[in-house]
Amino acid sequence: MTSAPLAPSASPVLSRRAGLMRGSAIRELLKLTEQQQIISFGGGLPASEVLPVEAIAEAAGRVLATTGAAALQYGATEGIRPLREFIAERMRRKGIPATPDDVLVTSGAQQGLDLIGRLFLDPGAGVVTEAPTFLGALQAFSAYEPRILGAAVDDRGVRLDLLEERLRLRPRFLYVLPNFQNPSGVTLAPLRRPALLELAARHDVTVVEDDPYGELRYEGEPLPPLASLDPDHVIHLGSFSKILAPGLRVGWMVGPRTLIRKLALLKQGADLHTGTLVQHLVTEVCRDGFLDRHIPRILAVHRERRDAMLEALARHFPPSVRWTRPLGGLFLWVTLPSDCDAEALLQSALARDVAFVPGACFFPDASGRNCFRLNFSYAPPTLIAEGIRRLGKVLHAALRHS
Amino acid sequence: MTSAPLAPSASPVLSRRAGLMRGSAIRELLKLTEQQQIISFGGGLPASEVLPVEAIAEAAGRVLATTGAAALQYGATEGIRPLREFIAERMRRKGIPATPDDVLVTSGAQQGLDLIGRLFLDPGAGVVTEAPTFLGALQAFSAYEPRILGAAVDDRGVRLDLLEERLRLRPRFLYVLPNFQNPSGVTLAPLRRPALLELAARHDVTVVEDDPYGELRYEGEPLPPLASLDPDHVIHLGSFSKILAPGLRVGWMVGPRTLIRKLALLKQGADLHTGTLVQHLVTEVCRDGFLDRHIPRILAVHRERRDAMLEALARHFPPSVRWTRPLGGLFLWVTLPSDCDAEALLQSALARDVAFVPGACFFPDASGRNCFRLNFSYAPPTLIAEGIRRLGKVLHAALRHS
Repeated sequence: MTSAPLAPSASPVLSRRAGLMRGSAIRELLKLTEQQQIISFGGGLPASEVLPVEAIAEAAGRVLATTGAAALQYGATEGIRPLREFIAERMRRKGIPATPDDVLVTSGAQQGLDLIGRLFLDPGAGVVTEAPTFLGALQAFSAYEPRILGAAVDDRGVRLDLLEERLRLRPRFLYVLPNFQNPSGVTLAPLRRPALLELAARHDVTVVEDDPYGELRYEGEPLPPLASLDPDHVIHLGSFSKILAPGLRVGWMVGPRTLIRKLALLKQGADLHTGTLVQHLVTEVCRDGFLDRHIPRILAVHRERRDAMLEALARHFPPSVRWTRPLGGLFLWVTLPSDCDAEALLQSALARDVAFVPGACFFPDASGRNCFRLNFSYAPPTLIAEGIRRLGKVLHAALRHS
Repeated sequence: MTSAPLAPSASPVLSRRAGLMRGSAIRELLKLTEQQQIISFGGGLPASEVLPVEAIAEAAGRVLATTGAAALQYGATEGIRPLREFIAERMRRKGIPATPDDVLVTSGAQQGLDLIGRLFLDPGAGVVTEAPTFLGALQAFSAYEPRILGAAVDDRGVRLDLLEERLRLRPRFLYVLPNFQNPSGVTLAPLRRPALLELAARHDVTVVEDDPYGELRYEGEPLPPLASLDPDHVIHLGSFSKILAPGLRVGWMVGPRTLIRKLALLKQGADLHTGTLVQHLVTEVCRDGFLDRHIPRILAVHRERRDAMLEALARHFPPSVRWTRPLGGLFLWVTLPSDCDAEALLQSALARDVAFVPGACFFPDASGRNCFRLNFSYAPPTLIAEGIRRLGKVLHAALRHS
């Protein structure tokens, strides 16, 4: 028995994608934020205080007492039927005409993105995303070695003029986060929604609508999902991570049935199926309208934290710095004067025990160096105030020098 | 802004891999076996009677009472540390010198296979497998469009002469199931183990050792894992599916640390991390030596079923039919006279409400049409006897005609 580390293999030949992987300096830096004393605005975690520990514990007891061994056995790749029924019903409430056969349960929405890449992408094929866009989507798609074409976002969502330019390059699909986008916090404006779909249809491009935050709206009225406006050309991704608990890793995809069937076959090779027990847990917890009672509690906590951050930003950040004012979700986006480098600032911030994610990693072309993302959902309001105060000092010092 | 009528249902351009996917006729046939009246030897399910429902229910209560929200939050891609410690310790008991940093928790061992494909394979790259081999591995690797080169298995495991021929073609890795192989039930003989590693080393090829059944030995002494004999050149895959419960979807990989790190980065894009709650559940259930008490119960039930099947085969199958006699695992392998077609037989079997998996889908080149796989772990002994009796009638009738 030895506890010596295993040594590397001689020199195995790895895939091209593995060669392209950068050991992320950011990832290493942000690992530091797991230390207790750091106030982290870096992650994308919902408030721990509203994770429904008791409801899930009770549901676990009931599921194992009633479903028994079936909740621990292998299951169908598509997901258990009662959960697909629940999801389809919830989608129909949003105007998306789904039946249980149009639903694929995924191991978090992250897996949905991987399966989308797998379904559509070959090396060198094009995919259009917003710029900035969700880091996890860039990671998922990159495994299939596409050309990722970004279209800039303004305060009403992705710019349609830029989008049209990119769509002319015949991408395989268009990936958008219409609600409280990660990382910008921006929402795609009502009039841009049908216009975006019209553009995609004209260029014969499937739209992938990622909507993990749609239910986390802190003000204003819900907007129609893209999939409700054009269900035949949109694959819609959803998740229980933000409305129930991320650690369950249960998400879903809804879309044209022929594509959902192919995605299920691809999922079979990826992980066979999503955990049976957690699927039963989600189904059991969500019976009898639990989410309708629970989501308002989440909203109250997150809204207070968003407001605490906006107030602290106004108080502590230098006047030359701008930020978005999100109507929902978990993030807001800070833009510094164009000669600032957010990655260098992160070093100074960490020295004061506060963390954020520099903007460049959210762009397919690593632009956005003068931007960064702040998460406002995880830290409680007093820590938000203190963290933004420290960050304000870092920014004042940096801008003074530059 | 207009909501002008959208283009008629487009035919999106899909990836090459999606185009190569065959809608599996077998998969559709086997869906029939979910009907209650069918006696299915088709799946790969462990006995439901030994799934530890109570132990897992109690553990769920304890985990949520003590770990609380942390068990429901996002977690590190590598897996929670207490589980990696448990796995590393268990690996060391088998002679594999692993530390927690050499372990990656996966969403079932199936995900491990997907990540292996992702790490090593480019379109056209070679991979060597046993022939027949695990269907799920063929599915996982195929997503990366390799050339899959099969080396035939005899009653002592993969044939080393054929293996050497394949290794000369410079594959990226060699995939083997040394214990109670799926689908053949064959175990790689003790003397072939170091010889196989010597061959792989000579050709500078990483070995991927898949060992989901290693602990399900019904007779004889355990053999050393390949990873214990040459830890620097073997990636070892394990799973809680057969020793605890498949529906949890928790597996692991152990291997050279540089490769495990790259695999973790690739996993991040695939599903971010394996469910936090189920990882805590597994850790909690396995405390205090639970598996050492539980596995003997699994063995007793599975051994009885294996023996029931072997006895029924001897009684009911025609003398021209041969089958393997596995020392463990879940499967045995039936070989018919060479002019028989197992897929055609499956139709007749289903007409008598009994199912199996035809052999061709376990071969990279779709040979093995005169073979089929039988699972002996799922059905209780009386149904095994009845199912094999019916199958015997089908075979007698078919052989009479041919």
